[in-house]
Amino acid sequence: MATIKVHGSPFSTATMRVTATLYEKQLQFDFVYINLQNGEHKKQPFISLNPFGQVPAFEDGDLKLFESRAITQYIVDEYGDKGTKLISNDSKKKAIIGLWSEVESQHYDQVASKLVWELGIKPLFESPLDPKVVEENEAKLNTILDVYEKRLSESKYLGGECFTLVDLHHLPSLHYLMKSQSKELFESRPHVSAWVADITARPAWSKVLALIPN
Amino acid sequence: MATIKVHGSPFSTATMRVTATLYEKQLQFDFVYINLQNGEHKKQPFISLNPFGQVPAFEDGDLKLFESRAITQYIVDEYGDKGTKLISNDSKKKAIIGLWSEVESQHYDQVASKLVWELGIKPLFESPLDPKVVEENEAKLNTILDVYEKRLSESKYLGGECFTLVDLHHLPSLHYLMKSQSKELFESRPHVSAWVADITARPAWSKVLALIPN
Repeated sequence: MATIKVHGSPFSTATMRVTATLYEKQLQFDFVYINLQNGEHKKQPFISLNPFGQVPAFEDGDLKLFESRAITQYIVDEYGDKGTKLISNDSKKKAIIGLWSEVESQHYDQVASKLVWELGIKPLFESPLDPKVVEENEAKLNTILDVYEKRLSESKYLGGECFTLVDLHHLPSLHYLMKSQSKELFESRPHVSAWVADITARPAWSKVLALIPN
Repeated sequence: MATIKVHGSPFSTATMRVTATLYEKQLQFDFVYINLQNGEHKKQPFISLNPFGQVPAFEDGDLKLFESRAITQYIVDEYGDKGTKLISNDSKKKAIIGLWSEVESQHYDQVASKLVWELGIKPLFESPLDPKVVEENEAKLNTILDVYEKRLSESKYLGGECFTLVDLHHLPSLHYLMKSQSKELFESRPHVSAWVADITARPAWSKVLALIPN
């Protein structure tokens, strides 16, 4: 029986960051389904795992964690000898990966998560989108993707020459945005477009997508 | 001559995160003053150091970084044998520090930075505050500080029994908020209040404050 448990939803981008990392590391885990539509993440027992009431929560034996990026960092640190490396042990390479990880978290995801909500999640519930939010955040995404295009013209991946956690952390929002009007912002930039095609084709990512019910 | 250079403003909370870490690690550095009022951070040569045009930027020899939390992580990794440790090498303790670092970055700072702007920075320029933004963000801060109060009743610091980067990352916004109406939210919670008193009394922090012009 797996000692690793992920409590989450297969539709949640933060949950997908964690399951993508586990598949890349070829680790076994149990998936505990949390029903977001029923508000299960805002009630006990889930909020004893995460007082902020957000998926995912994570257990590895007696270690309990929440916050997806803290969980993925723990997995790559603890299981360094398994699967894809996803980090570097060289201090300067690690610092560059850290820089672009912060760019993902502080810049890209602040904008991408709003667009995922408007263009990816709201349509599932036939809820009307807010055109002002879409327009504002697509303008911000344009600026960020200009920086990405320059970076990806200099190195194959955002963190350097290897696929790392930085690239992986973008996959869940790309899943929603590449099916939306925002796709054009990625496809109009050759290096960004090649990077999206490369990272979304990884076998571990197809396993994450297979968890989503039809 | 110091090989470390910090390009920033002594008023900027992100710059203060970096200088606080350097003082805790007892490292020498050169401070390159970037005039935010003149928009120096949005022009060359600064934007060649950070394409997002935000302070601080950082150099250590030929390594160039931006994003304050990536910089502080690099400093504690690279200079592990100097000054205060600020991290743990034990994988489970490190994971818990990682979790609360994400809480600071994804929850606390999203709210605190808006309150710092309204209550700390706008008054310096006699700009009127937006009462709706203050009300909304103080309500969110209340919820976050309830989680902190529980956590700090169980361990002396947010990351565990030792002062770490997690606590340090809160210091710059506390500098502004403890001089504002939001002070009450911290002082009404006994464990949060004791934690604020403890971490703001650190000698390294007084050196950061000494950089601010009168």
